[in-house]
Formats: sequence, C-alpha cells, structure tokens
Amino acid sequence: MVTRLSREARRDQLLALGREQVTRTSFDDLSLEEVATEAGISRGLLFHYFPTRRDFVIAIARQARDELLTVTDTDESLDPLTRLRIGLAAYVDHIAAHPDAYTSLLRGAAGGDDEMQAIADGGRQQLAERIIRGIGLDPVTVAPIVVVAIRGWFALVEEAAMSWLRDPDAIDRDDLLGLFERSLGAIATQVGNDDAARLGAAILGSA
Amino acid sequence: MVTRLSREARRDQLLALGREQVTRTSFDDLSLEEVATEAGISRGLLFHYFPTRRDFVIAIARQARDELLTVTDTDESLDPLTRLRIGLAAYVDHIAAHPDAYTSLLRGAAGGDDEMQAIADGGRQQLAERIIRGIGLDPVTVAPIVVVAIRGWFALVEEAAMSWLRDPDAIDRDDLLGLFERSLGAIATQVGNDDAARLGAAILGSA
Repeated sequence: MVTRLSREARRDQLLALGREQVTRTSFDDLSLEEVATEAGISRGLLFHYFPTRRDFVIAIARQARDELLTVTDTDESLDPLTRLRIGLAAYVDHIAAHPDAYTSLLRGAAGGDDEMQAIADGGRQQLAERIIRGIGLDPVTVAPIVVVAIRGWFALVEEAAMSWLRDPDAIDRDDLLGLFERSLGAIATQVGNDDAARLGAAILGSA
Repeated sequence: MVTRLSREARRDQLLALGREQVTRTSFDDLSLEEVATEAGISRGLLFHYFPTRRDFVIAIARQARDELLTVTDTDESLDPLTRLRIGLAAYVDHIAAHPDAYTSLLRGAAGGDDEMQAIADGGRQQLAERIIRGIGLDPVTVAPIVVVAIRGWFALVEEAAMSWLRDPDAIDRDDLLGLFERSLGAIATQVGNDDAARLGAAILGSA
C-alpha cells in the first residue's frame, strides 16, 4: 500500500532512507531499488524526485555535510577554547558513528566528481571561517595565509581521523582530540596575528 | 620510420612521453594515440607494453610519485632542520613546475581507484617515515600517534600546496614554506618525545 505523502515529505523520507543506507554501507553500495522498496514506492517514482542516481547521491552528501556542520556547531556565548573542544569531540564522535559514510564522502569528494568536491570544499570553508571568527578574526579581511593555515589544519584533522577510523584501537580517542587541539593552538601562535596568538597560547597553556 | 629499441628502452620512452603529456595537461587528458604517434609506433604496440589505459596511467603515476620522493630527498649528513628546509623547498618548486599533473595525481589518488590511492598513500608513508627517521625516531617502534601526527602534517602541506597552486599570487612562496616548517616544529614539540621536542624547539626557535 502506498502511503500518500506531500511532495516535500516524500523527498525528505527518500533522503532519510538513502542516508540511513549509506551510513550502514557506503555511497558505492547505495541501492535505489532498496530505497524505493523501503519507501513503498516504485523505482520510477523515486526517479521523479531524483532524476539520476547521481542527483540522489549528491542530495544525500549535501545533507550529510550539513549535518556534520550542525552537530559540530557550538554556543557562541562559550569561550573559544571550550567551543573548540566541544566541536572537535562532536566531530570525532559523529564520524565514528558513521565511519563508512564519512570515508566514502571524503574519498568521493576528493575524486573526480566536481559537485561532490564542491560539497566537501564548501563544508571545509564553512568550518575554517567558523574557527577564524571564533578566534576573533574576520574571514573576509584576514590574510590569505591564515585561511590556508586553518584549512590545512582541517586537512590534518581529516587525515588523522581517517587513520583512526581504519584502526581505532591503535590510538586513544582523547589523544587524538588532544593532537587536534594542540596542533591548532600551535598553528594559531604562528600565523602572525595577536588575537590568534592569544588563543594559541591559551590552548597550548591549558593542554 | 620505426626506430628499433630494446623492450626496456621502449617502455621507458613511452613512460617519458606519457609523463611529459600529463605534465603539460592532466591524467584525464592523456591521449594514448598521441603518445604512440610521438614514439613513432602503432597504438597496438603501445598496448603490448601497457595492456590498458589504466595500466599506463598507473605506471606514470608511480613514476611521478617516485620522482617526487627523489627530488625531495636530502643528504643524510646535513642537520635535520637544513634537510627539512631543502626538502620542503624542493617539494614546493617541483609541484609548482607540474601543477596540473600533481593536482590530478592527488585528486585521482583520493578518488575511487584503489591502486592510485595505494600509490599516493605509499608515497605519504615513505615521506612520513623519512621525517620520523630524520628527527631521530624509529618508524617501526614509535607510538602510532606520532606517525598519525606526521601524516596529518603532510595532509596540511598537501592541502595548503593545492590552495597555493590554485592562486599562487595570494600567498608568498616563502610564507608558505615558513608555515610548513613551523607547523611541523609545533607538532614535533607536542608528540611527547624528547628527540622530537628538541627538533621542534630548534625549528620554532630559528623561525
């Protein structure tokens, strides 16, 4: 029996089923047939919402990216160091709960598909700007080397997080979080800005 | 007229022509037809050496990776800081001379192809081990967090180098090299090892 849903509600339901499947397996193993069956609709109707498999994958990836940005967001009234710690812990715990989806998002994003890459790059840029604002700087007027340094730090976080996901027993979660925090602190002390240097010193001093 | 070459010499010649083309354009734009024409052989004979386009691409990528390892290698009799500076400058100048090939190598490697990824990962691992040995540690017995930290630092270098290649005028080459050097120094002071901490202090003290 086909449950009748509004167009918007149906689209959300299909995305939720797709994401749930990607979380269990990976983007490569996503079965549109299975999503349609679970939603109790025909494959043809699914294509009415997402004309190609790629459209569906991209919509799922964008939602996954936005969720990562949401779960790592923190209360602006907290001090920068507390926000950093809460955000990093949320990031590590979120990807640990969805390791395959996260790995295939990053691998797909870094691969040949320009739109997947734009999704991941947009997420990195938003995270970098959030951190830059968090240390009291303006992402628009700050020196380009600062943005490059913060984006570089986030590449370090992604690479180390991927290593950790491959072999979680080799490294303690808290050691990993400590490395992320201290390496940002170390970089912040080096970018040649007083506000950043103060945060860097605060991070390193409290480690 | 077909010049007669030994099997080994012909293979080297085809690889050299392929790499030269990839350096001018990218892996995606590699034309096997053009390589065969330049070598003065038939496309069929090229397939005798490299049975598929992918075999040819992988052989070129492996050679490019090895060349990057070679140009960034340094004299072991030099002190660690001098070796680091020479190696980083060689890395930046090498990728600046082959920006498209380097970008497509990294993007291809991070994408879906397992063998391309293994080539890039093998290169990163060798670079990480070279740095770990350079700071007086043993890559086999060192704590896993140290290897993860150094590999993470190299991800920072790759990400920042890619940003720089996209817009070389936004950031000064020497500022970029300074960022790479100081961020490694900062990380080395934080990994909880005396030898590493000494090198870290030396890097940061001389910056």
